[in-house]
Amino acid sequence: MHLSDFRSVIDQYDVIFFDSYGVLRSYQGLVPGVDRTFALLEEQGKEYYIITNDASRSPELLASSFHRAGLYNIQPDHIISSGMLAKEFLDLKVNDGIVAYLGTENSAHYIESSGLHTMPVSEIDDSNMHKVNALVMLDDEGFDWFRDLNKAVNLLRHRTIPAIAANPDNSYPVNNHDVSIAVGALAHMIEKVVGKKFIRFGKPDTQIFMFAYERLQAKRSISKKDILMIGDTLATDILGGNKFGLDTMLVLTGNTQPKDAESRIVSTGIVPTWICEAAVV
Amino acid sequence: MHLSDFRSVIDQYDVIFFDSYGVLRSYQGLVPGVDRTFALLEEQGKEYYIITNDASRSPELLASSFHRAGLYNIQPDHIISSGMLAKEFLDLKVNDGIVAYLGTENSAHYIESSGLHTMPVSEIDDSNMHKVNALVMLDDEGFDWFRDLNKAVNLLRHRTIPAIAANPDNSYPVNNHDVSIAVGALAHMIEKVVGKKFIRFGKPDTQIFMFAYERLQAKRSISKKDILMIGDTLATDILGGNKFGLDTMLVLTGNTQPKDAESRIVSTGIVPTWICEAAVV
Amino acid sequence: MHLSDFRSVIDQYDVIFFDSYGVLRSYQGLVPGVDRTFALLEEQGKEYYIITNDASRSPELLASSFHRAGLYNIQPDHIISSGMLAKEFLDLKVNDGIVAYLGTENSAHYIESSGLHTMPVSEIDDSNMHKVNALVMLDDEGFDWFRDLNKAVNLLRHRTIPAIAANPDNSYPVNNHDVSIAVGALAHMIEKVVGKKFIRFGKPDTQIFMFAYERLQAKRSISKKDILMIGDTLATDILGGNKFGLDTMLVLTGNTQPKDAESRIVSTGIVPTWICEAAVV
Amino acid sequence: MHLSDFRSVIDQYDVIFFDSYGVLRSYQGLVPGVDRTFALLEEQGKEYYIITNDASRSPELLASSFHRAGLYNIQPDHIISSGMLAKEFLDLKVNDGIVAYLGTENSAHYIESSGLHTMPVSEIDDSNMHKVNALVMLDDEGFDWFRDLNKAVNLLRHRTIPAIAANPDNSYPVNNHDVSIAVGALAHMIEKVVGKKFIRFGKPDTQIFMFAYERLQAKRSISKKDILMIGDTLATDILGGNKFGLDTMLVLTGNTQPKDAESRIVSTGIVPTWICEAAVV
Repeated sequence: MHLSDFRSVIDQYDVIFFDSYGVLRSYQGLVPGVDRTFALLEEQGKEYYIITNDASRSPELLASSFHRAGLYNIQPDHIISSGMLAKEFLDLKVNDGIVAYLGTENSAHYIESSGLHTMPVSEIDDSNMHKVNALVMLDDEGFDWFRDLNKAVNLLRHRTIPAIAANPDNSYPVNNHDVSIAVGALAHMIEKVVGKKFIRFGKPDTQIFMFAYERLQAKRSISKKDILMIGDTLATDILGGNKFGLDTMLVLTGNTQPKDAESRIVSTGIVPTWICEAAVV
Repeated sequence: MHLSDFRSVIDQYDVIFFDSYGVLRSYQGLVPGVDRTFALLEEQGKEYYIITNDASRSPELLASSFHRAGLYNIQPDHIISSGMLAKEFLDLKVNDGIVAYLGTENSAHYIESSGLHTMPVSEIDDSNMHKVNALVMLDDEGFDWFRDLNKAVNLLRHRTIPAIAANPDNSYPVNNHDVSIAVGALAHMIEKVVGKKFIRFGKPDTQIFMFAYERLQAKRSISKKDILMIGDTLATDILGGNKFGLDTMLVLTGNTQPKDAESRIVSTGIVPTWICEAAVV
Repeated sequence: MHLSDFRSVIDQYDVIFFDSYGVLRSYQGLVPGVDRTFALLEEQGKEYYIITNDASRSPELLASSFHRAGLYNIQPDHIISSGMLAKEFLDLKVNDGIVAYLGTENSAHYIESSGLHTMPVSEIDDSNMHKVNALVMLDDEGFDWFRDLNKAVNLLRHRTIPAIAANPDNSYPVNNHDVSIAVGALAHMIEKVVGKKFIRFGKPDTQIFMFAYERLQAKRSISKKDILMIGDTLATDILGGNKFGLDTMLVLTGNTQPKDAESRIVSTGIVPTWICEAAVV
Repeated sequence: MHLSDFRSVIDQYDVIFFDSYGVLRSYQGLVPGVDRTFALLEEQGKEYYIITNDASRSPELLASSFHRAGLYNIQPDHIISSGMLAKEFLDLKVNDGIVAYLGTENSAHYIESSGLHTMPVSEIDDSNMHKVNALVMLDDEGFDWFRDLNKAVNLLRHRTIPAIAANPDNSYPVNNHDVSIAVGALAHMIEKVVGKKFIRFGKPDTQIFMFAYERLQAKRSISKKDILMIGDTLATDILGGNKFGLDTMLVLTGNTQPKDAESRIVSTGIVPTWICEAAVV
């Protein structure tokens, strides 16, 4: 496995797409040194986007949390989250009525819009079920799993409505040793019981890359050849970036350990253009 | 779809295997008239077994609950449950240490044996995790889903031990309108996160039929041609019975509604030998 | 199930996306009357695109075949095929070497480009295998299944390269009674053997809709609200259109029979905005 | 990873179950030294069975091929094949009419019986399709894949009959470098197209172990504790043996390479009781 020098790789691209968790931050806070990377990008006037499978908060709240962690210049409009795709879907396709959600209040707040009222799954009952026009899974926290996963199952059995997983990940690390079950795995379970498929938003699906690409195109013409996608997960960041036609870089600060990188690339057949230790200059 | 007369069908067999839920009982209690069926079987001296995907209680407790419901003569040794298969596996293959379980205390009690100590997943910590030699999912109740499903995931990530789903069903009906997520679906979710497979016990796997068949053979020689399996679910009762080489009867008092029976048989290709309205003479 | 009048529905949209097979044509030729639909669209100056999971031919050859069938005005640049997405991927991500393919010579011809040489899987041997930088499945015809599917399996076991299914469909109708196994199902089989995932291009993935949408945007600004996607298949056309944020119309001239439409919508939870008998004014 | 001494392990058991391919033989012939193992077993008067996922030939022909390879004493009644389970199913459950098959003439010959006529899928046509009462996949050779896999798909779409995969393996090695697609993977592909499930016979399902166990019990009482299952594949031999309640031994002469054994055990959670280099004393 050939490790490339991060600085000399990014010098070859005009625009950088970053995954968030495992690349810029971890459960311990900022990956040490990534602030220097952003300082360099700003010095060079290079554009960047953060492309994240996260539906737990609005881009504004995501930006605030980067600021608190020490990345002071990341603006909300440079963050593309899978939650934003779910929100666009709801705006375009579910025009009125109630959107039932599983997640925290924070996660529900930002998908509200003029015509749509959000309601936690826990509050669904016989009197309002007929008004529920979509189910959306936003976060694995903020609800009682036993009560509300069962309620979600029965909602989907009784109502012919779209079911949305606003984050397709099956798990996320909570510390050095342990992971937590994420929204994607909960959606798989409900699919097994109900026999209907969730609509999933987020990497590796290419739609999330298109959101960032369109924002770029709105400013100036840019070729996919000039964009680099940096991520720590082969099955989401690298596969998605590859499929969208971008060059990709695997970093070893998150889901893919240095000792496993080569064997996972071979066993999955998902090949990044570059491998670097960290997204750090 | 040709409906047969229940009485004239069972007259053609020496031994009857019954599924429990959806055939003999429902959320409302006994299926009206099944007591007459058992009275007839006993009058005729025909043997029967109840073959159930249930790991929540011992055969003794299952028999008691039949007695309370009004089937007074069903003996524990005529009940074969998927939990008994899980117990045999633990006895033969996991000789010592701790068996961590998800379920109620009742469900754990009967899988205890001389060498094996059971412990709820909630009590696993760094001090005892190294002694845990198996994980077994017995019931969807009796534990905190959020805390303990996450603990089960991390147990399986840290320890190379067998994981057992003692009931493969994905859901069960709780009333006329709603179902509840069952142990089988929870196991699917954990598999998605961890990437390891659970060992599943219960129909449609044929092992559970073999338990009953061996008990029969211990008394006298009996041909599979003389045994009828009666169930309400194509994918478990009928597929399993068919695969084991038994004639099978679908009854329409449980999971398969009269209006759906024909289309489900065609769409799954799982064909019962007979279809009757109910297991009632 | 409410059937809408086709003419009054399309009057509400500026741009129409059509699936091809099952909407415009069938194994018997043109769906009777669709020529009138295109005459109307041209009279009204409305734009349309044909969005098809087809990788067997170039857009030019696809257009010719529409002309031969009687749709004389369909231009190649109004056809978006999953094969074009696969071609873009190869151009951007596989810059040199050999692309091994399964399909006809016609299907391979149009994915050739300056740097890339295509070669049928049948011609791979020990002398050239190290130069093969991608495998692409284009068509279910044009090769010996036994010999070449086995060769493709071993190619993917020996080389860490992207594997592409340029059409995700599992089957297609060949006449009133029978279907044929398609590229998508062959890819599933190879995945089972090799344990690696194919990159799939085509509906329901939204990338193919983005290709058409970008062409539209290059001419003028258009909102997704003004585009209607018309298809005969819930799991590809309608799900993909819905996910991309378009209004969708199910027509009953192809994969979805009038008698099945309602039950399939309920059982899948994939709900079209409109249902019409045919895409015919 | 602790390697045990083969001789001292088998001394602890009364009965040995062997997988065939990868344990006793390979594409190169007999595994060197296994003849000494069988000589020892016979000297000690220990019983053994060969338990193989093979439906391509009768036990008699399988025994002959062992004789030709140099294991002169293996008798047909000591071989249990997945094909025998399929044959029993056909005898018990499909009493008359035609069994359509995919495989060689040899594979079809031994599943014929008094009431059942076998016919290659290639010969199915409109005149006889209504008499076909089962489809059975016996071997990956002996038929035209393109023509006959498509015919099998349409047979299952038109007729509500059981579909049987008489060997669940997805692939088998043909030489040091290459594998061949096996019946199990072909069945997966057909399932994807048709939406119906095949009935699979063979390891890891425990039914095949029960066949051998019943033959043992017919002679004398034997406890599962006294039987050892030896195999080269974790997902079939070891998982199946474990689930049936047997002690298991992984040998490293077939599908599991010495360098991969430990990581595969950890990643699958399928743990053999013993690991030995080869089934050779």
